[in-house]
Amino acid sequence: MTTVIPGFRAIIPAGGAGTRLWPLSRRSEPKFLRDFTGSGRTLIQATWDRLMPLTGPDGIVVVTGQAHGAAIVHQLPGGVEILIEPSPRDSMAAIGLAAAVLEQREAGVIVGSFAADHAISGRSEFGAAVGGAVEAAREGYVATIGIAPTGPSTAYGYIHLGEPLVGLGARRVAAFVEKPSASVAAEYLATGEYRWNAGMFVARADVLLDSLARYRPALHQGLRTIAAAWDTPDRARILDEQWPALEKVAIDHAIAEPLAADGGVAVIPAGFAWDDVGDWDSVARLLPAGDDDVRRLGEVGRVLAVDAPGATVVSTTGRAVAVVGVEDAVVVDMGDVVLVTRRDAAQQVRDLPSALAAEGDLSLL
Amino acid sequence: MTTVIPGFRAIIPAGGAGTRLWPLSRRSEPKFLRDFTGSGRTLIQATWDRLMPLTGPDGIVVVTGQAHGAAIVHQLPGGVEILIEPSPRDSMAAIGLAAAVLEQREAGVIVGSFAADHAISGRSEFGAAVGGAVEAAREGYVATIGIAPTGPSTAYGYIHLGEPLVGLGARRVAAFVEKPSASVAAEYLATGEYRWNAGMFVARADVLLDSLARYRPALHQGLRTIAAAWDTPDRARILDEQWPALEKVAIDHAIAEPLAADGGVAVIPAGFAWDDVGDWDSVARLLPAGDDDVRRLGEVGRVLAVDAPGATVVSTTGRAVAVVGVEDAVVVDMGDVVLVTRRDAAQQVRDLPSALAAEGDLSLL
Repeated sequence: MTTVIPGFRAIIPAGGAGTRLWPLSRRSEPKFLRDFTGSGRTLIQATWDRLMPLTGPDGIVVVTGQAHGAAIVHQLPGGVEILIEPSPRDSMAAIGLAAAVLEQREAGVIVGSFAADHAISGRSEFGAAVGGAVEAAREGYVATIGIAPTGPSTAYGYIHLGEPLVGLGARRVAAFVEKPSASVAAEYLATGEYRWNAGMFVARADVLLDSLARYRPALHQGLRTIAAAWDTPDRARILDEQWPALEKVAIDHAIAEPLAADGGVAVIPAGFAWDDVGDWDSVARLLPAGDDDVRRLGEVGRVLAVDAPGATVVSTTGRAVAVVGVEDAVVVDMGDVVLVTRRDAAQQVRDLPSALAAEGDLSLL
Repeated sequence: MTTVIPGFRAIIPAGGAGTRLWPLSRRSEPKFLRDFTGSGRTLIQATWDRLMPLTGPDGIVVVTGQAHGAAIVHQLPGGVEILIEPSPRDSMAAIGLAAAVLEQREAGVIVGSFAADHAISGRSEFGAAVGGAVEAAREGYVATIGIAPTGPSTAYGYIHLGEPLVGLGARRVAAFVEKPSASVAAEYLATGEYRWNAGMFVARADVLLDSLARYRPALHQGLRTIAAAWDTPDRARILDEQWPALEKVAIDHAIAEPLAADGGVAVIPAGFAWDDVGDWDSVARLLPAGDDDVRRLGEVGRVLAVDAPGATVVSTTGRAVAVVGVEDAVVVDMGDVVLVTRRDAAQQVRDLPSALAAEGDLSLL
């Protein structure tokens, strides 16, 4: 049984277009609002499901843009607070805003940020890892959770493990390293001293904000000013004044990397399975194969497959789908468009919404 | 200008399921009733278009099954006579029936049989070849038209050219040879002495029937008996009696091959382009590529292609179709099913309707 962690609040930044998961992921219904694992829960619902036991139903804050606030309210239970960003200013502003608002309300609160659109299996291992991160956070670290690599992925950044932190079940982060080449990734794996960076950060809100003050003082000042006005009648006015000027920067660059260099970041090596659900190859990996070696998602009708090992069929229409002689085919069948690709070409799918957007054709976006 | 050939009648046997062209070709609307070349005319309409100038509007007879008689009447002009077969008994019975009925009405008539579902370009070359075949037929030959191979196809039978027939612009057929292996086909091409067998046969009806009497006397007798009753009140009764007992055999095996061995078949080497529209690879070859290297057929909406050279999109829905990273992809988008295949796997498409039929699932057939 996982139990609520006292003084812990979760922040879910819900942004990102998920253009590699077009056409199921759309502007009006991006990745986090869709079920990409066949669980019956959308990605943000599944994120809520795994955090709620650790925070309690009132301990989760979602940060999102104006376009998706209503859909998130619709998908999540009533107790969830939703902070609306006037415009996207990257993850440091989103997470920093929530941390500053929560710290303003409750000094000493511990916050953890978790993306709205990742998939995790192993609920109790996840809870244990978050618990370990909270312990490290209580000791003044910004703590992250390091995912055990299942292969030499070139799609993720890596965390280089440093020395053990006595009494914490954590290790110091020696460094965050960028997405490596395949050969470098293989070297990392061979050492056993690297973990995937899933972008999960747990810290005392005051520690997080003090770090921000150190590395990005202007951004810190703006967020503190907004937070001070958040629960007052001045919120809108101050947001209008301050938000557009905030620096657009990822939390990794703003805090995690420089603070790790200064020895202030801890990592909990975790055992649960994690996937960023980044593209159709990810989705195919996450879906169970049927007896016919076909992976299905959504309202899939009859599937006919001949010489089509590893096929994945996604549908919102219930139509029959036939695949002949295309290995690792991915077919996404929707009312207005059908996408045909292969798992090994999945990264290129993002080029399609980009091309449509560049032409100003919004009909399929 | 092509002109009507006196005493010449065309027979169009319209049968065959076209299962390799599923799902556009269906039981209820088989290949010959559909436009597979983007010409705006169905295959049987295009067949009529190229024969009518040679026969006149009243010189064409279609032989088909009960299921498709009405659709053919709908697609072709009023002057076309349609002979309905009670059940399919292969091409010799179909063509032989029409030849016997025409001979019964008009002794000495010359008939030519042309499949309802092939594609030909080069109208005047076609007319010239048929004219040459009719000349050979007047001299007592069963004449065929030999297609100049455009490559070492293993999908077609070949005609081995024999000695020239003096004064006819034709050559004797040395032999009909079965579909060869690729290496044998290449050898054939290197000699220049082989042509593709497109199954076109032109003969005096009495010569054709006499040959049948020689090689298949029971079949000949049955067809003569039916033809004698055709234009009388006894047609239905005699058909019921005789038709079910007729041998199922192709005209190639029944007449062309044995008669060639006996020196009685002539071939007109022809210069027009011919395709049997056998599968989606054929269709892709016949369709012109757009500026984006995509081949389109039907009500195709927006096509988005990334790293998808040689893509072919067929649609009856007008939906958008996106193809990413699948070379030579063929996407057939219909209201109840979408087929995804590649040109080099096109032959396997027939396995799908076979599997559906074997299960008794007729919904997609």
